[in-house]
Amino acid sequence: MAKGIFITFEGIEGSGKTTQGKLLFESLKKQGYDVVYTYEPGDTEAGKHIRELLLNSEIKITPLCELLLYFADRAQHIEEKIKPYLEVGFTVICDRFTDSTIVYQGYARGISIDLIQNLNRELFNDFMPDLTVLLDCPVEIGLGRNRKINKKDKFEIENFSFHEKVRNGYLELAKRSQERFFVLDATEPTEIVAEKIYKKVISIIESL
Amino acid sequence: MAKGIFITFEGIEGSGKTTQGKLLFESLKKQGYDVVYTYEPGDTEAGKHIRELLLNSEIKITPLCELLLYFADRAQHIEEKIKPYLEVGFTVICDRFTDSTIVYQGYARGISIDLIQNLNRELFNDFMPDLTVLLDCPVEIGLGRNRKINKKDKFEIENFSFHEKVRNGYLELAKRSQERFFVLDATEPTEIVAEKIYKKVISIIESL
Ligand SMILES: Nc1ncnc2c1ncn2[C@@H]1O[C@H](COP(=O)(O)OP(=O)(O)O)[C@@H](O)[C@H]1O
Ligand SMILES: Nc1ncnc2c1ncn2[C@@H]1O[C@H](COP(=O)(O)OP(=O)(O)O)[C@@H](O)[C@H]1O
Ligand SMILES: [Mg+2]
Ligand SMILES: [Mg+2]
Repeated sequence: MAKGIFITFEGIEGSGKTTQGKLLFESLKKQGYDVVYTYEPGDTEAGKHIRELLLNSEIKITPLCELLLYFADRAQHIEEKIKPYLEVGFTVICDRFTDSTIVYQGYARGISIDLIQNLNRELFNDFMPDLTVLLDCPVEIGLGRNRKINKKDKFEIENFSFHEKVRNGYLELAKRSQERFFVLDATEPTEIVAEKIYKKVISIIESL
Repeated sequence: MAKGIFITFEGIEGSGKTTQGKLLFESLKKQGYDVVYTYEPGDTEAGKHIRELLLNSEIKITPLCELLLYFADRAQHIEEKIKPYLEVGFTVICDRFTDSTIVYQGYARGISIDLIQNLNRELFNDFMPDLTVLLDCPVEIGLGRNRKINKKDKFEIENFSFHEKVRNGYLELAKRSQERFFVLDATEPTEIVAEKIYKKVISIIESL
């Protein structure tokens, strides 16, 4: 049975991950591909509870506890959803994944990146996406978009320099893993960005 | 400033951990010692949410997700409660700790014990109790006691052989770390068990 392709969307808040992930899902579906859209954290039943805890800014959580909750969510997500779909040949589109953990908990919150990568190896055997779409844009643009729609969770209320660290962390990861990352200018109009992503994905599918 | 002593209580369901932990707490307090009683999982605000999820038998959780939730709870617990009290010289009594994870998630659920110990090293730098009181009793006695009080969470409803694995796992750990474990026959009357524990703890405190 064909193994599906695992595609993740990454980028700062407001960069367009959800918009673009869903557009890609719709385009592939329209072309008749088996495809599923999912996200982290929280896209399983256990995950919903974990997500509530993670995004509740009233509850005190240490950086290490936060890190482990993301990993707990991911463990459930990989086993319950991502792997079963990949195994039957679906393209799996995931809004945020391990790169988010490295960038938010590592680069931005200051947890050792080696620790995060060691955990990823020990827990998930270094399971990583086939393709990661990085939607890059300046912090003021991403946050500005989300301010317009009044989105305000635990991460959106972090200060500017936190988001700068996130953006730069992503660019650093992309430089280190050029074969996996597809970096786009997320300030371009939605349809232009969507078109570039679609072409890239189709070229990968057709090369298989 | 004196560093306090960290004492954990371990054993199968119904072995008397909570009973004995609280009795020790009361005895030490009466003697004027600075002492605090705590438990896992769930003795922090974040932990309460994690505990609810862990003990809810309606929510599907993979063994790895479960393991990571226990570690998340412990990360918060160590940093928010256990270490701050130890640092100011308190005796900290904790109802269940890392040995529970090794025995329940490892010996009984089948997760690699090496993995659990590696995580404990990477995450907590092998932070372990100074003394672990293991209340050992046959499974039918422990479960029988809890049946009397109608206690029925996710672990109490596991089958007999699960609890046998837990009991034997504990005995195995105690054999491997004899300097840390104090193993007691938990079928003896409450006051007899309590007296033995109290004497042991006082002898440790006085030897410091
Ligand atoms: N390329 C774009 N140009 C202008 N606005 C955009 C673009 N992409 C997304 N948006 C808008 O920005 C906001 C955040 O987009 P969203 O996809 O939710 O970002 P993310 O999931 O990365 O936080 C939404 O209101 C969305 O319509
Ligand atoms: N040594 C003992 N002899 C008889 N009953 C006991 C003894 N220790 C505890 N119990 C009773 O067994 C039940 C379970 O005890 P508990 O301390 O809650 O166990 P655990 O915390 O290990 O699950 C309680 O009803 C308690 O009163
Ligand atoms: Mg989004
Ligand atoms: Mg108890």
